[in-house]
Amino acid sequence: MSLSMYQASVPVFIHMLDNLSAILGKAASYAETKKIEPGVLINARLAPDMLPLSFQLRMACESAKYCATQLAGMEPTQQPDTEATFADWQARITKTIDFLKSLNAEQIDGSEERTVIIKMRTQEMRLQGQPFLLTFALPNFYFHLTTAYAILRHNGLDIGKMDFLGRR
Amino acid sequence: MSLSMYQASVPVFIHMLDNLSAILGKAASYAETKKIEPGVLINARLAPDMLPLSFQLRMACESAKYCATQLAGMEPTQQPDTEATFADWQARITKTIDFLKSLNAEQIDGSEERTVIIKMRTQEMRLQGQPFLLTFALPNFYFHLTTAYAILRHNGLDIGKMDFLGRR
Repeated sequence: MSLSMYQASVPVFIHMLDNLSAILGKAASYAETKKIEPGVLINARLAPDMLPLSFQLRMACESAKYCATQLAGMEPTQQPDTEATFADWQARITKTIDFLKSLNAEQIDGSEERTVIIKMRTQEMRLQGQPFLLTFALPNFYFHLTTAYAILRHNGLDIGKMDFLGRR
Repeated sequence: MSLSMYQASVPVFIHMLDNLSAILGKAASYAETKKIEPGVLINARLAPDMLPLSFQLRMACESAKYCATQLAGMEPTQQPDTEATFADWQARITKTIDFLKSLNAEQIDGSEERTVIIKMRTQEMRLQGQPFLLTFALPNFYFHLTTAYAILRHNGLDIGKMDFLGRR
């Protein structure tokens, strides 16, 4: 069976968000065991002018959802940002995964040349579905996912790359 | 044109390694301007038991090359690890990009079901080409690439996500 736009996006996002959820589970246990106020981790940053863990988690969810909706030609869904606790973030990840699972391959396959408009703070980009997925959506998703991992690792959480890859 | 195993791997690696090279160029200038000994950045880590920038750079190169050779059914090439300076790392990235450019689509397309054996410290995994690419090789590549970015960002380098994505 040959590689498809669906296979290269939705199941990948689900798999990696599952791994993120497992890492967050470890972070919650770590905070409890070490008597760390969860907000300390959720608001932690790698640099004063870099965005905190909460933002990285939001972007991991939103970038996956945005990619899937754009490839499917759907309106991007809006989600209020009200999460404060690890439980809230787990719920948001679960909700994102549930949405991704609601999509089927037919909605996304064949989107290689579908026009995607990316609105950014200072510019608007138009890309075809395939370069959008490969050179924007996937690197953007992995950027936030790995940054979330790195923030927790920097703050002492005992995790390794196999947690990130979901192969532990 | 539908998505292919080649399109989802080799040109992506080349694009992202080009971005990494530009980021390293900024790091070298930053070290020079701020009179930071380059080794301080090259050996920087996000946690005492996490591997340094040099390792992340090596893995960014090696994981791309390993993925491409495995999908192409070629023997993985060996590369001595002798890099010490930013110029050495730029040369290694260039060499990796040159190797990737030497591959053609025909060598990699159709590798969806080719068996890939991944030898790790404690286990050996067998995966088919498509899950290998999507759930191992790409996340692994992005993990090291983003960690390299995060180490430099944590150490004060003025870069943003658009540098990572190569859209600046």
